[in-house]
Amino acid sequence: MSFGAKHLLGIEHLNPSDISTLLDLADQYADRPTDIAHRNVLAGMTQINMFFENSTRTLASFELAGKRLGADVMNMAMQASSIKKGETLIDTALTLNAMHPDLLVVRHPHSGAVDLLSQKVNAAVLNAGDGKHEHPTQALLDALTIRRRKGRLHRLSVAICGDIAHSRVARSNIILMGKMENRVRLIGPPTLMPSQIGELGVEVFDSMEEGLKDVDVVMMLRLQRERMDGGFIPSEREYFHRYGLDATKLSHAKDDAIVMHPGPMNRGVEIDGTIADDINRSVIQTQVEMGVAVRMAAMDLLARNLRESRVETGVMV
Amino acid sequence: MSFGAKHLLGIEHLNPSDISTLLDLADQYADRPTDIAHRNVLAGMTQINMFFENSTRTLASFELAGKRLGADVMNMAMQASSIKKGETLIDTALTLNAMHPDLLVVRHPHSGAVDLLSQKVNAAVLNAGDGKHEHPTQALLDALTIRRRKGRLHRLSVAICGDIAHSRVARSNIILMGKMENRVRLIGPPTLMPSQIGELGVEVFDSMEEGLKDVDVVMMLRLQRERMDGGFIPSEREYFHRYGLDATKLSHAKDDAIVMHPGPMNRGVEIDGTIADDINRSVIQTQVEMGVAVRMAAMDLLARNLRESRVETGVMV
Amino acid sequence: MSFGAKHLLGIEHLNPSDISTLLDLADQYADRPTDIAHRNVLAGMTQINMFFENSTRTLASFELAGKRLGADVMNMAMQASSIKKGETLIDTALTLNAMHPDLLVVRHPHSGAVDLLSQKVNAAVLNAGDGKHEHPTQALLDALTIRRRKGRLHRLSVAICGDIAHSRVARSNIILMGKMENRVRLIGPPTLMPSQIGELGVEVFDSMEEGLKDVDVVMMLRLQRERMDGGFIPSEREYFHRYGLDATKLSHAKDDAIVMHPGPMNRGVEIDGTIADDINRSVIQTQVEMGVAVRMAAMDLLARNLRESRVETGVMV
Repeated sequence: MSFGAKHLLGIEHLNPSDISTLLDLADQYADRPTDIAHRNVLAGMTQINMFFENSTRTLASFELAGKRLGADVMNMAMQASSIKKGETLIDTALTLNAMHPDLLVVRHPHSGAVDLLSQKVNAAVLNAGDGKHEHPTQALLDALTIRRRKGRLHRLSVAICGDIAHSRVARSNIILMGKMENRVRLIGPPTLMPSQIGELGVEVFDSMEEGLKDVDVVMMLRLQRERMDGGFIPSEREYFHRYGLDATKLSHAKDDAIVMHPGPMNRGVEIDGTIADDINRSVIQTQVEMGVAVRMAAMDLLARNLRESRVETGVMV
Repeated sequence: MSFGAKHLLGIEHLNPSDISTLLDLADQYADRPTDIAHRNVLAGMTQINMFFENSTRTLASFELAGKRLGADVMNMAMQASSIKKGETLIDTALTLNAMHPDLLVVRHPHSGAVDLLSQKVNAAVLNAGDGKHEHPTQALLDALTIRRRKGRLHRLSVAICGDIAHSRVARSNIILMGKMENRVRLIGPPTLMPSQIGELGVEVFDSMEEGLKDVDVVMMLRLQRERMDGGFIPSEREYFHRYGLDATKLSHAKDDAIVMHPGPMNRGVEIDGTIADDINRSVIQTQVEMGVAVRMAAMDLLARNLRESRVETGVMV
Repeated sequence: MSFGAKHLLGIEHLNPSDISTLLDLADQYADRPTDIAHRNVLAGMTQINMFFENSTRTLASFELAGKRLGADVMNMAMQASSIKKGETLIDTALTLNAMHPDLLVVRHPHSGAVDLLSQKVNAAVLNAGDGKHEHPTQALLDALTIRRRKGRLHRLSVAICGDIAHSRVARSNIILMGKMENRVRLIGPPTLMPSQIGELGVEVFDSMEEGLKDVDVVMMLRLQRERMDGGFIPSEREYFHRYGLDATKLSHAKDDAIVMHPGPMNRGVEIDGTIADDINRSVIQTQVEMGVAVRMAAMDLLARNLRESRVETGVMV
């Protein structure tokens, strides 16, 4: 089993074989998430979670994944930190690097900040979301959820709906679904579409009814009010009327289409509560479950590469 | 040793035999709190502490208890969380549930919120305080403290003094002391008494001198200013004069009466500092010590039930 | 190997042999920081980090040190705590003490608060910085960094530059360097000098050019704006011009002089970024690395003393 990268910075750097390798391993972890034998995988390794943005669920998922693999896990809430005292991101990175972490999980409000940081440290870096850029483990957990439910991860028709412009989740998913040879449709108001759609190789729809026609997978996105600076902000009622997923709109998709949401949900804004709770359609809880498994797999693979590179270079830490 | 419940939601759901079982086990943990052999009790299990209200000492007590039993312990500060992003309590519960925790320790400002949450998850849930409803581990640690000091937990005369109306500590203690066949007296200003006293099977006093007469145990409560919305708020000086425990008032109790306080204390408001520090009367530090032991016992017993139910249902996690 | 103290409250309580013992052990940890064999050193012991002031890097360093030695580590953010509810520092200390911690790491904004607290608890207490008083592990990590780089820790000429008056780092370093028989020079504006310099046995300079002449070690300090209440606050530009370390000023020191900074740095205020990044001169990252090693050594030595005292007194915990 080979996985090429030193870091997990974005889906854009992975090839289809990397993705399959990671999902195959995640499948095993998903079947036995709390097996005590996993404790040896990261035993003696230090995982530092540096979150420059709040995120209860992603942080919890990475923390649990690390603990179940036996790592020493340390959370650093970077709001309350040296950053306030005027220290640069690079100085923070160098400081942490000097403490010899093995895995650095980083969330940052600026696109590209995690890449920059990864160039300054010896640890394997996992991007837990950077600005509007990428959120690779979210795309991977979505992929694992789909593959387990649909039996495959190719030749599917996938609709991503809502606030695409502000969403790193959408961006990572568009790239991953494209690499695995699926058809991707983006549905949402033109004001919430990214500016350069041409390059993405996707179809774009302004109407849920048209866009959802015959799709296998419906991915809803959270309305990211906190990232909308200045531009159009729809009223919640109006938004739900046109773009919120309800039974009527979902009836345009395939009969066995699954419904996904990265959470946390705004019930009644982007998704009707009844759909979210329908265990025949909604796989939202499964996504959370697969999240821990995918993060265990990602950290396991990166740690293997790290150990190999240390043996090769004779580094003793 | 049998303990009936799946969750520990309140003293109201326990019978005297459950209480004795738990206290017997807690006694053993109290004698050897840091014995490294305890590490196996919760090894491989995940304990998540979800505190929707700040509480340094209760959180620390549960965290230490879990770590000493070998659990993976994860704290989630829910103020800074998805709740802010508009997620419902139920969605939060379902999300956590999907991460396969074994034990969920929950504090919440609303009465009944922890019960509600317990119905949605597979984990064993421990109530760490919900609104004005219950705080069962506090009542259990108080009971263990009394039993170790008095040699028994029945036929005692127990006075609970102060702000009864806003106190889940008082409520849980009233129920527990009643179940174990003790006489309970409530002492405090009528404005700080709960509205339905008749059902409680207690005696009520407006005067400390009368209420404390010949009692074995004096439980002081913290003046909960943060929970008094609108009603009568006494001045601290006036409150101490009438209801604060000092040597003169304590002289009405039995000569060997013990003094308790759940902490944190307002010295000079509800209790005189000299009394609090008198090691012949005050058992306040012992209460904290018993807190860790009681929580170890509670999590141990719930984990046993959880394992048994999983064997019965064939669930493999 | 003997180390006299029960606590590590300040450099002022250590003799030169204590310092050497600690640095010798830290040297070993620095060579193999993540060796899994270290896990046994504090196995079964509880380390509580009580930080009444924010400090991402010092907290992280103590947390990592404890985890690498196998301790159960618990962080308590004391801002959000009982302190707010009016509890005294002593009550907080007694409460924690009742939970049977073995090691208490305390940072507090008031000078002397950590000493006071240490008198009330059974645990070994480590001062992680108290007001303007002491920050002993910082001085020890600076000493280890110097000893490893210079090959010795005596007969060196050491310049401490900048905001001496507000700096516990400066104070601990002045004491340590003096005890190990080095010459210490303080450089900075008179308004940022401590009032009682006479007792310190140091030379004082108002000019960087004069003060840095022929020194072996240049210790820069952070401009502590947050601690300047009322007095002179220089503009950053003016400060850098006169007291900021740049290549010109550094040229007055010995050719092989090393440059230190406790972090977090204000680049362009007290130090030029180019100097900070010059791996031939700057040992700033090494300081962070030695920080973990020194804290591992300190906790190891205090834990040995703690175990011995428990055997002697027959305490079983």
